[in-house]
Amino acid sequence: MQQRSAAQSAIIDRGDDRLDEHFERVRSGSTALAQGLSPEDQVVQSMPDSSPVKWHLAHTTWFFETFLLKPNLPSYEPFDSSFGYLFNSYYEAVGTRHPRAARGLVTRPGIAEVMAYREHVDTEMLRLLAGAAADTLKPLVTLGLAHEEQHQELILMDLLHLFSCNPLAPAYRPVRTRLQPDPDAGRWIAFDGGIVGIGHDGKGFAFDNEGPRHDALVRPFRLFSRPVTNGEWRIFIAEGGYRTPTLWLADGWAAVNAQGWEAPGYWRQRDQGWTQFTLMGEVPLDDTAPVCHVSYYEADAFARWAGKRLPTEFEWEVAARGLPAVGNMIGSGLLRPVTGEPALDAPGQMFGDVWEWTSSAYAAYPGFRPATGAVGEYNGKFMANQFVLRGGCCATPERHVRATYRNFFYPHQRWMFAGLRLAEDA
Amino acid sequence: MQQRSAAQSAIIDRGDDRLDEHFERVRSGSTALAQGLSPEDQVVQSMPDSSPVKWHLAHTTWFFETFLLKPNLPSYEPFDSSFGYLFNSYYEAVGTRHPRAARGLVTRPGIAEVMAYREHVDTEMLRLLAGAAADTLKPLVTLGLAHEEQHQELILMDLLHLFSCNPLAPAYRPVRTRLQPDPDAGRWIAFDGGIVGIGHDGKGFAFDNEGPRHDALVRPFRLFSRPVTNGEWRIFIAEGGYRTPTLWLADGWAAVNAQGWEAPGYWRQRDQGWTQFTLMGEVPLDDTAPVCHVSYYEADAFARWAGKRLPTEFEWEVAARGLPAVGNMIGSGLLRPVTGEPALDAPGQMFGDVWEWTSSAYAAYPGFRPATGAVGEYNGKFMANQFVLRGGCCATPERHVRATYRNFFYPHQRWMFAGLRLAEDA
Amino acid sequence: MQQRSAAQSAIIDRGDDRLDEHFERVRSGSTALAQGLSPEDQVVQSMPDSSPVKWHLAHTTWFFETFLLKPNLPSYEPFDSSFGYLFNSYYEAVGTRHPRAARGLVTRPGIAEVMAYREHVDTEMLRLLAGAAADTLKPLVTLGLAHEEQHQELILMDLLHLFSCNPLAPAYRPVRTRLQPDPDAGRWIAFDGGIVGIGHDGKGFAFDNEGPRHDALVRPFRLFSRPVTNGEWRIFIAEGGYRTPTLWLADGWAAVNAQGWEAPGYWRQRDQGWTQFTLMGEVPLDDTAPVCHVSYYEADAFARWAGKRLPTEFEWEVAARGLPAVGNMIGSGLLRPVTGEPALDAPGQMFGDVWEWTSSAYAAYPGFRPATGAVGEYNGKFMANQFVLRGGCCATPERHVRATYRNFFYPHQRWMFAGLRLAEDA
Amino acid sequence: MQQRSAAQSAIIDRGDDRLDEHFERVRSGSTALAQGLSPEDQVVQSMPDSSPVKWHLAHTTWFFETFLLKPNLPSYEPFDSSFGYLFNSYYEAVGTRHPRAARGLVTRPGIAEVMAYREHVDTEMLRLLAGAAADTLKPLVTLGLAHEEQHQELILMDLLHLFSCNPLAPAYRPVRTRLQPDPDAGRWIAFDGGIVGIGHDGKGFAFDNEGPRHDALVRPFRLFSRPVTNGEWRIFIAEGGYRTPTLWLADGWAAVNAQGWEAPGYWRQRDQGWTQFTLMGEVPLDDTAPVCHVSYYEADAFARWAGKRLPTEFEWEVAARGLPAVGNMIGSGLLRPVTGEPALDAPGQMFGDVWEWTSSAYAAYPGFRPATGAVGEYNGKFMANQFVLRGGCCATPERHVRATYRNFFYPHQRWMFAGLRLAEDA
Repeated sequence: MQQRSAAQSAIIDRGDDRLDEHFERVRSGSTALAQGLSPEDQVVQSMPDSSPVKWHLAHTTWFFETFLLKPNLPSYEPFDSSFGYLFNSYYEAVGTRHPRAARGLVTRPGIAEVMAYREHVDTEMLRLLAGAAADTLKPLVTLGLAHEEQHQELILMDLLHLFSCNPLAPAYRPVRTRLQPDPDAGRWIAFDGGIVGIGHDGKGFAFDNEGPRHDALVRPFRLFSRPVTNGEWRIFIAEGGYRTPTLWLADGWAAVNAQGWEAPGYWRQRDQGWTQFTLMGEVPLDDTAPVCHVSYYEADAFARWAGKRLPTEFEWEVAARGLPAVGNMIGSGLLRPVTGEPALDAPGQMFGDVWEWTSSAYAAYPGFRPATGAVGEYNGKFMANQFVLRGGCCATPERHVRATYRNFFYPHQRWMFAGLRLAEDA
Repeated sequence: MQQRSAAQSAIIDRGDDRLDEHFERVRSGSTALAQGLSPEDQVVQSMPDSSPVKWHLAHTTWFFETFLLKPNLPSYEPFDSSFGYLFNSYYEAVGTRHPRAARGLVTRPGIAEVMAYREHVDTEMLRLLAGAAADTLKPLVTLGLAHEEQHQELILMDLLHLFSCNPLAPAYRPVRTRLQPDPDAGRWIAFDGGIVGIGHDGKGFAFDNEGPRHDALVRPFRLFSRPVTNGEWRIFIAEGGYRTPTLWLADGWAAVNAQGWEAPGYWRQRDQGWTQFTLMGEVPLDDTAPVCHVSYYEADAFARWAGKRLPTEFEWEVAARGLPAVGNMIGSGLLRPVTGEPALDAPGQMFGDVWEWTSSAYAAYPGFRPATGAVGEYNGKFMANQFVLRGGCCATPERHVRATYRNFFYPHQRWMFAGLRLAEDA
Repeated sequence: MQQRSAAQSAIIDRGDDRLDEHFERVRSGSTALAQGLSPEDQVVQSMPDSSPVKWHLAHTTWFFETFLLKPNLPSYEPFDSSFGYLFNSYYEAVGTRHPRAARGLVTRPGIAEVMAYREHVDTEMLRLLAGAAADTLKPLVTLGLAHEEQHQELILMDLLHLFSCNPLAPAYRPVRTRLQPDPDAGRWIAFDGGIVGIGHDGKGFAFDNEGPRHDALVRPFRLFSRPVTNGEWRIFIAEGGYRTPTLWLADGWAAVNAQGWEAPGYWRQRDQGWTQFTLMGEVPLDDTAPVCHVSYYEADAFARWAGKRLPTEFEWEVAARGLPAVGNMIGSGLLRPVTGEPALDAPGQMFGDVWEWTSSAYAAYPGFRPATGAVGEYNGKFMANQFVLRGGCCATPERHVRATYRNFFYPHQRWMFAGLRLAEDA
Repeated sequence: MQQRSAAQSAIIDRGDDRLDEHFERVRSGSTALAQGLSPEDQVVQSMPDSSPVKWHLAHTTWFFETFLLKPNLPSYEPFDSSFGYLFNSYYEAVGTRHPRAARGLVTRPGIAEVMAYREHVDTEMLRLLAGAAADTLKPLVTLGLAHEEQHQELILMDLLHLFSCNPLAPAYRPVRTRLQPDPDAGRWIAFDGGIVGIGHDGKGFAFDNEGPRHDALVRPFRLFSRPVTNGEWRIFIAEGGYRTPTLWLADGWAAVNAQGWEAPGYWRQRDQGWTQFTLMGEVPLDDTAPVCHVSYYEADAFARWAGKRLPTEFEWEVAARGLPAVGNMIGSGLLRPVTGEPALDAPGQMFGDVWEWTSSAYAAYPGFRPATGAVGEYNGKFMANQFVLRGGCCATPERHVRATYRNFFYPHQRWMFAGLRLAEDA
């Protein structure tokens, strides 16, 4: 998701609210995330994979200015002509852009100007949406909002990384407590195989990489009723998981040694035991919550150690299809994966909490064609060297994910909220 | 293939010759490759991905000593106890090993001792094969020989790279001329879709990653009758292929810029036009021969530029299954891909000339389990970040490849003899 | 100066103002530099050699808290106990510290808290200076103020670099115009040789590396009446200076090729000619002003190209000793080197405008001993691989430099205001 | 010495033998070093700083072909026109050259051809030396021979490094035993200060960087009677020398941490104690022999730990001037530094055993001008970032060094035979 396109193949209104309300809801969701942050918090880029909050706020705005306002609102006056260069992410077709790794060096415009930029564009957008062309533009607006939701999740990922670099371990938000369910040993849920339809069926919004819908052959399999937990991961560590080369992919073992991995990302070994750095600061590790911030290599090694495997993305989609796409997402305010309610007949926590690594390399579905125009640039261009994750996480906006949603990251990356769920052949 | 395991799931004699004759044929094939090479040629390692010829000759011998002689010939006396450390490639289960990138720093033992090592092991192996246990050991011996054939191809790849670093452009072998067929415009061959059996069926030798045989769903497709040629690649260059970011995967475009790629590997731009550095030295580029030494990124970009795509590995296997696995391989002595005879009803040059990139990420087949024991270490451990290539090349030993054979390389690598063939949806 | 200690051997009041007035003058000079900067401008670190403005403001304050208040003011309550770790620069003796290259990742405390920290410490310091111990502490306070002046210059250097990374080319200050003197062809000023006293004579403040004063043997020499100008450097470029290996030190030639140097730092080639990025934004190059932002390697190559040489630091000191240490420094508000008035009997512009590279490797004077205690840590520890520069620059506080002052940088560095002056044997 | 020029200012016959005899003696000395080496040993380059033996043998020959035969022997036919490119070291003025770090990739020409090249050039050189021009050419021939002697030492340094990379720890030569003198506690030898003449006086051969001879002011000092020993270094280690940052130059401490230094180069910690890898293989550490393979940073830290300092190169020269330039050099066949005889009135072991680090940055003497022409390229171009070493070592050819001889290396380098001797102010 770190380099997320905004293309779509078929865009149909999900009908949950009016377009202008939808617009205002998503846009204000982004600025709400910045509340309580200082200008300093919003300008710094803590690693090449991440971006400053200010950049996210500007780039999502640039999307509407570039693809909606400029082509469709004749009276539109750009807020600042230099922003096109500064806030383009990777759309080659709309001109050159500022290098990704240097985003944190741009201190001017500051956050105040970026907020003014947002207001300027929002005002004009509402004017546009009140006009006759609104219906025609709906697909593109919806796309821009889905795109902005992706950046909302990135904002939280990037802030977590930034704050983790601060020796004072600042908290982004106070801890929100909740009633903790009893721990659940979990169980295996069986699924039949056969020829199944995979991919988005064309109703409601979806990104282009979720289609075309096509048949796939799936073999009978079992999926575990919940994600792997921190407590289970502790056993993996204790039993030498990070020191046993035969558990690892060759590239994974190289990463373990090059990076000095001994535990998931943001885990810290203290005298009194493991803690975890979170958006609420450093807290004791919760043994029954899903493990988070593990790379594909770690997820794969854990599964091998457990004598199981990761599910394919098709298996995951088969298991998820009938389930409501709800769970512990950004709206809960918990901002961390938590212990789930025990699941019986169907796998639990399929949506929210943690993105779940699948064993599927991110690739085009048969017949995939990128959308035309700059907007279509590209989910396709990231289709090498990455793996698919499914289901959304505690930082994903509600109503953003669905059973067919394909997220993807490089196998060495850990700063997203990624965990895993085990599978086995039936 | 640069880090190639030797595991297999089911090993059955292909019945073409007696085991001892098979052994002597393959083993002498390796030493034949070293003929005409100086000790200097055989000790140097020209990049981390490659190995010295001397190392290949010793490592393949170490395989027989370690997995056949030591466990099965009680009277066997190791040639030199230090060789176990020096010539282990990556088998973690049999102890520590010399770092891969430092193989070229070991000047002692020299090539003379390594040849004595080979003779020592060969003599003892023939003694072993004359004994009662020969039948039982046949699968493991056959595996060792297939493993050695892989290193024969690596020897040629690595020599080509080494000699390409020498400003004097030495030739490994003299040019062997041949009657050149007429150029062929080529044509599309159509294939039906459906549920097809993929993978090795258990008759004859195969590597473990070729199984288990399983059903796969393939859609109707067309495959071109021949690989893409040098002449076609020249047009791609002339039309700005290497300068057009929208043709490339994001990681591919980064590689183009980081490596300064402007043409396939070993191409050289001279005043009089393009030449190619080959095992016969620097020669004029042959426009009708298959393009070679292209990375996955380049193959993928070319296909996009051509408005086509790469085939999946399943499509390739469907197209190849009925064809004899013969072609321009090492035995032809040509040591380069050459223009093929026009193909009509079935795709031509499916075997030999160039390995063909597929769009399939290298992954385990459903139900895949690595072989047990050190020998089973691992095709599995390379199953991330690589892509599958099919069909063998001009440096592959005859009888080594088959329709189910899966080779794999990282998408940025170019020193193997890799080209491409176009596909499209039917 | 980028890693500048604050040790001194002999500290005597220069008598120009009362200690508390001196304290307030220097301290308020630092905050004045931050005026007009946004919080964003003050938190970002644009390269490992530089530091955020916020860090400079905090670190100089930490010096007074750590070395003056904590040991000498019993009632002192630290502003924040974590600041000791965050704002220590490199004093090993006072505990661990935050890694230099990660200074830009600390967004909290923000600039508001750092300003409160300054006020807290200033208040307490004035209380301390009003007490009985003031006389005893005067040397250490003076040292702390000289140290802070060094960081004032660093603030300007680091801001220039930061703003140069911004594609919008922001200006830190508006251009202040001045009456431009007539261009000066310049002339050679001759100096006798002999045994001369070198180093600080013990009157007034000096850093420890300026002593002990000792005899040195200097041969007759000539020094040019002004620094090398931009216009002269343009000829060097035009005549292939950056493309002629025989003009360069071997390490310098390697730097030219590795860094792609084709002109001094901050020069930009535009359609209409060369410009220079300055603290006033991008401005046309001023041909008669001293060239600035050249590395030692470039200065040395230029001198060789000119058939001259750089002066030794002893020669420079001999030439400067009688002159008033005044010139175009920070107080002029010009913030850039400018054309000087023609000099006749004595070299002009010896102080201010640009630091002048000497050919002297930075080394200890005979008998040099670092000051004892943490404060004495260390000018000595930088005495390898750097070269001495003399005379101060347009970003140096008035009254900070003197004829014996030794600045030092690595030969590849360019972000300081460094130029050169030619010398030759008499 | 790793990038050693061959320039000289004033060359006068040292009169020890006829020029043709001198030529034959030095030239056969090089080939004698290669005796017992395999072709493999001679082609591999084990790090960028080193070169293959084969390259040294060819490059020294190239010198005579390029600077003597081609300009002065009209009938001369070059052995192979491609060798000019391959075996030029760094003389920019005589054309492009093969990259230094790629010297080990050239397997052809092999060692047999290089030996034939040597014979060809030797034959022609003797023909040239028998002719009328011999007297005129004597300075240049003498220079070529001094240059070749430098490469003889490099051959031994580079072989030691190469063999140290081999896990089998091969020995270049068998251990030659000797009568071991009693250990010597050592003593301080005092020297007066004053104005002294430094540099070569013009009698006999010297490199250009040894002049011009000039006056220097030296203060009274004391020099220790012998170099620091391995036993003394063991105490430094035991007392935490490598773990105490305040003992180190800042760049040195960075090197300690980046390289993981815990002992001098080639020391190995075994269960039974420290050993040292030498040209005779791995041997127990000799406590009373001079410590060897220490960087400048280590030498400087040791001196600080001991409460002493390194001598300047002028002090060293003052102490050495009256002494015969003899000692444990290559002719002894020991090939390692050894315990010296106790010295009384004058420092012992000033020549041979180990090069001694001085505190002097390598710089031009006043009035230094490089020799004209390609041969004069350059001692001067290395005059930055390196430090001077004096006195020769166990791998230096006899009669090669003298009291004015200036060797130089980067402060982080350790593969040369470098140790140290302590000094203090009188």
